[in-house]
Amino acid sequence: MSKKLKVGLFGFGVVGQGLYDVLHKTKGINAEVVKICVKHREKPRPIDKEYFTFDKNDILNNDSLDVVVELTDNADEAFEIVATALRKGKAVVSANKKMIAEHLEELYKIQQQTGSPLLYEASVCGSIPIIRNLEEYYDNDLLNSLDGICNGTTNYILTKTSEENKTYEDALKEAQVKGFAESNPRLDVQAFDPKYKLTILLCHTFGVFVKPEDVFNFGIQNLSAADSTFTREKGLKIKLIAHTSKLGDKIVGYVIPTLISPDNMFYAVRNEFNAVQLGAAFSDKQFFYGKGAGGHPTASAVLSDISALVYRYRYEYKKVEQNGTLPFSNEHLIDVYVRYPDESFLKELNVTDIQQRFSSSETQYVIGKVSIDSLLRANLNERNDVFIAQWN
Amino acid sequence: MSKKLKVGLFGFGVVGQGLYDVLHKTKGINAEVVKICVKHREKPRPIDKEYFTFDKNDILNNDSLDVVVELTDNADEAFEIVATALRKGKAVVSANKKMIAEHLEELYKIQQQTGSPLLYEASVCGSIPIIRNLEEYYDNDLLNSLDGICNGTTNYILTKTSEENKTYEDALKEAQVKGFAESNPRLDVQAFDPKYKLTILLCHTFGVFVKPEDVFNFGIQNLSAADSTFTREKGLKIKLIAHTSKLGDKIVGYVIPTLISPDNMFYAVRNEFNAVQLGAAFSDKQFFYGKGAGGHPTASAVLSDISALVYRYRYEYKKVEQNGTLPFSNEHLIDVYVRYPDESFLKELNVTDIQQRFSSSETQYVIGKVSIDSLLRANLNERNDVFIAQWN
Repeated sequence: MSKKLKVGLFGFGVVGQGLYDVLHKTKGINAEVVKICVKHREKPRPIDKEYFTFDKNDILNNDSLDVVVELTDNADEAFEIVATALRKGKAVVSANKKMIAEHLEELYKIQQQTGSPLLYEASVCGSIPIIRNLEEYYDNDLLNSLDGICNGTTNYILTKTSEENKTYEDALKEAQVKGFAESNPRLDVQAFDPKYKLTILLCHTFGVFVKPEDVFNFGIQNLSAADSTFTREKGLKIKLIAHTSKLGDKIVGYVIPTLISPDNMFYAVRNEFNAVQLGAAFSDKQFFYGKGAGGHPTASAVLSDISALVYRYRYEYKKVEQNGTLPFSNEHLIDVYVRYPDESFLKELNVTDIQQRFSSSETQYVIGKVSIDSLLRANLNERNDVFIAQWN
Repeated sequence: MSKKLKVGLFGFGVVGQGLYDVLHKTKGINAEVVKICVKHREKPRPIDKEYFTFDKNDILNNDSLDVVVELTDNADEAFEIVATALRKGKAVVSANKKMIAEHLEELYKIQQQTGSPLLYEASVCGSIPIIRNLEEYYDNDLLNSLDGICNGTTNYILTKTSEENKTYEDALKEAQVKGFAESNPRLDVQAFDPKYKLTILLCHTFGVFVKPEDVFNFGIQNLSAADSTFTREKGLKIKLIAHTSKLGDKIVGYVIPTLISPDNMFYAVRNEFNAVQLGAAFSDKQFFYGKGAGGHPTASAVLSDISALVYRYRYEYKKVEQNGTLPFSNEHLIDVYVRYPDESFLKELNVTDIQQRFSSSETQYVIGKVSIDSLLRANLNERNDVFIAQWN
């Protein structure tokens, strides 16, 4: 066993405090929090003020600290902190999905150059050890797909609309009261949060680096009573699914509300829980399920990363080397349910192979095919008169 | 990346052939099958006969082979092969749950003495990477329980009895026709197979070595139409659950049919699938689901172990050192449904706190409490007039 790791912490919100608590409660882990960098000088703190600093350099320039744990919510500042810490030879643990998704290729290169490890299990699906499993266990198994419910807030809302017949607006308010949704819920409900997670998973599943803006995401903010009725009548549920798969010589990936039947494991994933399903050539479907958000699940994932650093663990990014030449592509047709305002929209979106059309005084929809490329170009999150769900 | 691993294989049944196929299909893995030891000289073989030998020493004494993969079905012979290979400095991969469960402490010691690694992910829940996750990821997270559906044959039978209203006998026949159940199905239906798996998991979950004979197992062979009716009327399903948990300063563990409600993730685990649920102090429930049996899932797990050997992976058995002093105990009361032949049986079993009694011309049962110790001493698998299920 190595010497005790000394941790410098950035941020002391729910996760930071959870981590501090856990490290002080768990005997097995050879690590202690030594210094904590925070923003607000006036805020009362639950532990000795000697721990705190307001200057990031007190941690970054302190050679006696081995590990930086970055738990702030500003992606740009976080990138500066993480990149600097890696260049100074420190190991880094981060939970910042937006920052990692936006800078993953650069962070990969900095790790290759400096030899300093960056671990970020907590950035994707909280306590589910999906990155570690993709890195270590599914190295070789001819993976062909990954699907995930990666956002607890939207899954909570979708559970309430489907099981308790609540409207989207009421369910969102309930999620906010429960503390799941941000006061500005756009990142969650417009599916930016799961898109950042998918961007990270694309690298560890298939070895491709993709910019978040090239990945299609459409959320659940336009879900109407008519959409819920349609879903219920078909015996289905809507889940917000992040998907990637290998199709011949290309990789596709996108986040979209998806109609799920009862024989699918995702059907049983309720409330704020997350789940990931891997499709592999020889082991078929592997399914992981657990709490995706909140202080303790996230702290638990950060803790596992710190513990792994004690044993000198690092991501090897083997798939980047193995599969790095496969291109990411949005040229891919999917089957969809489209509730639309007028025919011109269907034309604009280029919906083809229309197999069902329904219209009444309340709603009109079609079932047909559409390409991810068309969806991406349609800026759907800017509209409020459209709902689209993949027909799985 | 290291040199190419040269593999000597014992056994060339479904899994061995699956492994040979996979290694020849997958480019990413730096390993090749060089020699295969089999028993039957006369059997036609699908690959070049130059690969085969009938003398185990052709593999064990061949210094150019780095890895022994043991896929035979005789536990005693397998132990000799594995122990000898480890002592000769070879890395070993085995899928033999009975052999590993019966000799785990000795195999642990041989690994400590020789430094040779033994990996056996395929011995527990096929393609679900549960040992690896327990070893690597849940090192520190204050684990408090593990529950598993670890036997595909019995889960297939239970799916058919609950969903299609089949009798136990018809469902068993169907499983045998499908190739899931052995022609002598006792290991499966009397829950010896999941007990071996639980014995292995006890070591990697809580760091305790237990003899299989000290672990209580009761199977589904006595399931009657009356038991199925009871279960259905309560809106429940019966699943054969292997359970272990930390209770204060002791570890309990046992395998028993268990009544499962629809809000439990195990409810949705159907047919030949396996699942494992971990309870951890900070991340709550983590759930893993995948194919538990069959040539390809098992080959896939063996393959992941071989691939890990390329990177010099070994189990560190950290929990044996961390928690090795916690004793295993059968002094633990559980709530049970007991269908019984006569009152003397309830006395013999010492069923207490009886809260419900039912009797009719077809059946009689009680709901009460019983200790694992009493269950173990009652030799239930030798009787055919009793069915017991944990009321979860």
